[in-house]
Amino acid sequence: MKALTKDEIAGYLALNLKDWTFEGNAIKRDFKIETFVEAFSFMTAIALVLEKIDHHPDWSNSYNKVSIVLSTHSAKGITHHDIDLAEKIDGTYKRYAQ
Amino acid sequence: MKALTKDEIAGYLALNLKDWTFEGNAIKRDFKIETFVEAFSFMTAIALVLEKIDHHPDWSNSYNKVSIVLSTHSAKGITHHDIDLAEKIDGTYKRYAQ
Amino acid sequence: MKALTKDEIAGYLALNLKDWTFEGNAIKRDFKIETFVEAFSFMTAIALVLEKIDHHPDWSNSYNKVSIVLSTHSAKGITHHDIDLAEKIDGTYKRYAQ
Amino acid sequence: MKALTKDEIAGYLALNLKDWTFEGNAIKRDFKIETFVEAFSFMTAIALVLEKIDHHPDWSNSYNKVSIVLSTHSAKGITHHDIDLAEKIDGTYKRYAQ
Repeated sequence: MKALTKDEIAGYLALNLKDWTFEGNAIKRDFKIETFVEAFSFMTAIALVLEKIDHHPDWSNSYNKVSIVLSTHSAKGITHHDIDLAEKIDGTYKRYAQ
Repeated sequence: MKALTKDEIAGYLALNLKDWTFEGNAIKRDFKIETFVEAFSFMTAIALVLEKIDHHPDWSNSYNKVSIVLSTHSAKGITHHDIDLAEKIDGTYKRYAQ
Repeated sequence: MKALTKDEIAGYLALNLKDWTFEGNAIKRDFKIETFVEAFSFMTAIALVLEKIDHHPDWSNSYNKVSIVLSTHSAKGITHHDIDLAEKIDGTYKRYAQ
Repeated sequence: MKALTKDEIAGYLALNLKDWTFEGNAIKRDFKIETFVEAFSFMTAIALVLEKIDHHPDWSNSYNKVSIVLSTHSAKGITHHDIDLAEKIDGTYKRYAQ
């Protein structure tokens, strides 16, 4: 899968992924959730999706905060896989957002 | 902790736990969720609570369905621990209910 | 996928799945693990596999015990999917067995 | 709980926590596991412990790698809570180490 151009990425972010930022060679979003219990169950929902599509981000957690960084190593950039996954993550987050 | 009487249990169920039933020596509720991903993340949120309060139910899962059966072994019946836990589970379920 | 015959199922169980039993229209195994923490992390490892292969069992947990019942609804019986999944579950269990 | 001195921290790390490093105001260890499935089930086992003791680290995951950074915010440093948790994490890791 081909890496998207900067303009294409900016277009997707403006359209559907307003809370994601383009940094370095990846897209990133910080999530804030009410408690650790909910943050970790949010992560579990996402982990089940990640393993299914075999696309694994760099992500981190600190109590009620979760940060997710998406890129496609094989394409050395951001591809449609990352855009699709970001949209799925945003859909899952709705359930957990404060 | 002392086991509650049948009347006390019926009172709690009528008051706050309308979706729970009293069966045998335990209280039970069946949950229906949209998908397995959400059912398992619901279970993860509950697992984190269970381990924290050191009170573990009999529970089962089949795709998008989760059944939880609560009782207190040491009291050979239902105690305030079970009532409190049932309320917490119902609170968590709100996030996942269809 | 076609349901296996009773003889085929008995053959697989004798060969590779000695701790599974054939009951009703399904194969079943009970697992015992040291603590709830380990039992639930065993379940999480399995959940990630289940969602990936889109094959979901009936399973239950009570503290350090996990029971898993496998069958293929669409085939009204046991198929190679169940045999494969049972072998994967046994492989995962090695890490958690006491 | 009082923050440990640098000498005390160095002592604990030398004694029992040889794979942890003291960086900035925290102790850190990088874990490598076979697959994402196992890395995330390792994280789930730890999450259950974290919530129970109400002590939450900064941690991150990338496929089969998990990094955990421990400190005690209220003490502005490292306390016995962190040392105890690091030992528990190492105990859990044994099950997942390659």
